[in-house]
Amino acid sequence: MIVTLAGGVGAARFLAGLVQVRDPRTCTAIVNVADDIVLHGLAVSPDLDTVTYTLAGEIDPERGWGLRGETWQAMDSVRRYGGISWFNLGDRDLGTHLYRTHRLGEGAALSEVTAEIVRAWGLELTVLPVSDDRIETRVVLRDSDAETAAGGEVSFQEYFVKRRHGVAVSSVRFVGAAAAQPAPGVLDAIGTADLVVIAPSNPIVSIGPVLAVPGVRDALIARRERAVAISPIVGGAALKGPADRMLVELGYESSVVGVARLYRELASVLVIDHADRHLAPAVEDAGMRCVITDTIMASPDRSAALARTTIGVHE
Amino acid sequence: MIVTLAGGVGAARFLAGLVQVRDPRTCTAIVNVADDIVLHGLAVSPDLDTVTYTLAGEIDPERGWGLRGETWQAMDSVRRYGGISWFNLGDRDLGTHLYRTHRLGEGAALSEVTAEIVRAWGLELTVLPVSDDRIETRVVLRDSDAETAAGGEVSFQEYFVKRRHGVAVSSVRFVGAAAAQPAPGVLDAIGTADLVVIAPSNPIVSIGPVLAVPGVRDALIARRERAVAISPIVGGAALKGPADRMLVELGYESSVVGVARLYRELASVLVIDHADRHLAPAVEDAGMRCVITDTIMASPDRSAALARTTIGVHE
Repeated sequence: MIVTLAGGVGAARFLAGLVQVRDPRTCTAIVNVADDIVLHGLAVSPDLDTVTYTLAGEIDPERGWGLRGETWQAMDSVRRYGGISWFNLGDRDLGTHLYRTHRLGEGAALSEVTAEIVRAWGLELTVLPVSDDRIETRVVLRDSDAETAAGGEVSFQEYFVKRRHGVAVSSVRFVGAAAAQPAPGVLDAIGTADLVVIAPSNPIVSIGPVLAVPGVRDALIARRERAVAISPIVGGAALKGPADRMLVELGYESSVVGVARLYRELASVLVIDHADRHLAPAVEDAGMRCVITDTIMASPDRSAALARTTIGVHE
Repeated sequence: MIVTLAGGVGAARFLAGLVQVRDPRTCTAIVNVADDIVLHGLAVSPDLDTVTYTLAGEIDPERGWGLRGETWQAMDSVRRYGGISWFNLGDRDLGTHLYRTHRLGEGAALSEVTAEIVRAWGLELTVLPVSDDRIETRVVLRDSDAETAAGGEVSFQEYFVKRRHGVAVSSVRFVGAAAAQPAPGVLDAIGTADLVVIAPSNPIVSIGPVLAVPGVRDALIARRERAVAISPIVGGAALKGPADRMLVELGYESSVVGVARLYRELASVLVIDHADRHLAPAVEDAGMRCVITDTIMASPDRSAALARTTIGVHE
């Protein structure tokens, strides 16, 4: 059994590679839910959906989020009314949120609904939200902007989408995390995994909330010798999103060494890109064994190759 | 000022005729909300939207509900998941429900949100939900069916859409009506109207809930001599929907005479179709003055003609 801690795009691509080289029935993804947002009354779970849509081969290849063949009629109507238009929801994608909202309203747990959605796309791996409880990443902005004073707090999506992660962050917190329970199966999956992978996701706001759920970090520490992390930082930069700036703004180093310092208690190996081979000694000094490979998942083949290398680390 | 009590399609067509012959700024529609339903977490108001879309010239002419140029991508996704698919929501239409749900979630009253939506479509008449409070038509079925025992109760939309109003009704009730407040402006509009029109809508489930809101019936009784009703029954049948069967099932007569008996306290005149001219004496015997005209609004011109005749009744 291989358990992968996952955020959005990077994790989804890794998982898509993984299920090419391993029986998907032996793969479990434990996915961040702290980016989830209620919009127009609908429960939107961006990371869960990115994972599902990517594995289903239905992610829009140009945008990198949402579904292929998407239309935007509902958003056009919302715009007519002057409603919330900074977060685009495609018409096909809306069906997912309608279904999830309906089922949650019936009292189903997010983990149940997620399993139903994953099954409906014909996927055989297990996708677990890290928790069925509401966890909400709040981002404290360093400077004032049009809507928020310096030190003002916004939701993750207001930071990430509305402000296009173009503003400096002074801290983040995960509201609800301390009181959250791991979803059924999460701790057990980690505890019995042959291999735990920390996917190349934002360490602060994608993996951070997963680790903040009580019990998860300890379960990982116990599996350190069977765990491997893949650096989301390549050549000092994030391939996508604000992980690099965020690391620096929060006092970490935006490098594979900075990543190693964040993960060294949780995983014994860090997979880094060839571009960072000169930093391998520093990673080892930081306490993680280093594996150097091509980590840029520009194609399904490269994702599969990265997955193959990653799962070979402890074999 | 002309105030029209309105349900869905028939009322919407009448109002579309009315605003051709009268300055829309002098027209107010007071609309049924007891058909409203929460679906997938979204607040859906079918009668309000039918009125708005029709007046905006955007109602789908073939279906008679929803918007022109509609697509169904969200519903296709919902079906993939096995979600609620018996109530079709088009993608364009969904934008209206998203906006309404968002604004209600912010604490706005339905009447405020309705005004915003009506304005966004460029309409100049006033559209008021009869109440900002939740009123829910519950339909008691006479016979058992696959989902409900005899005497079982379903929502209006479960009766109307899911069962295509093809089952017998033994009673209806309007949950919440007795405790509901008229929306701001409703009683005042009726009290100061030069003319009150009861549109050709289902007397039981469209006009019935409007009358069930405390204060509305009394306000109408006080304006009886300035009020006119248009029969939704022509030749003993409803032009659309189950009004005819429902009247019979609930012990009324499915005829202009049956309609007159329901409305005679509220309006002094009943407008009936040429097809029912032989029943004019019986209507007058029932206590309403009778005006005979063409009530079948098969075109905008005919809607305008019916409106002209209707507003001429008390001039």
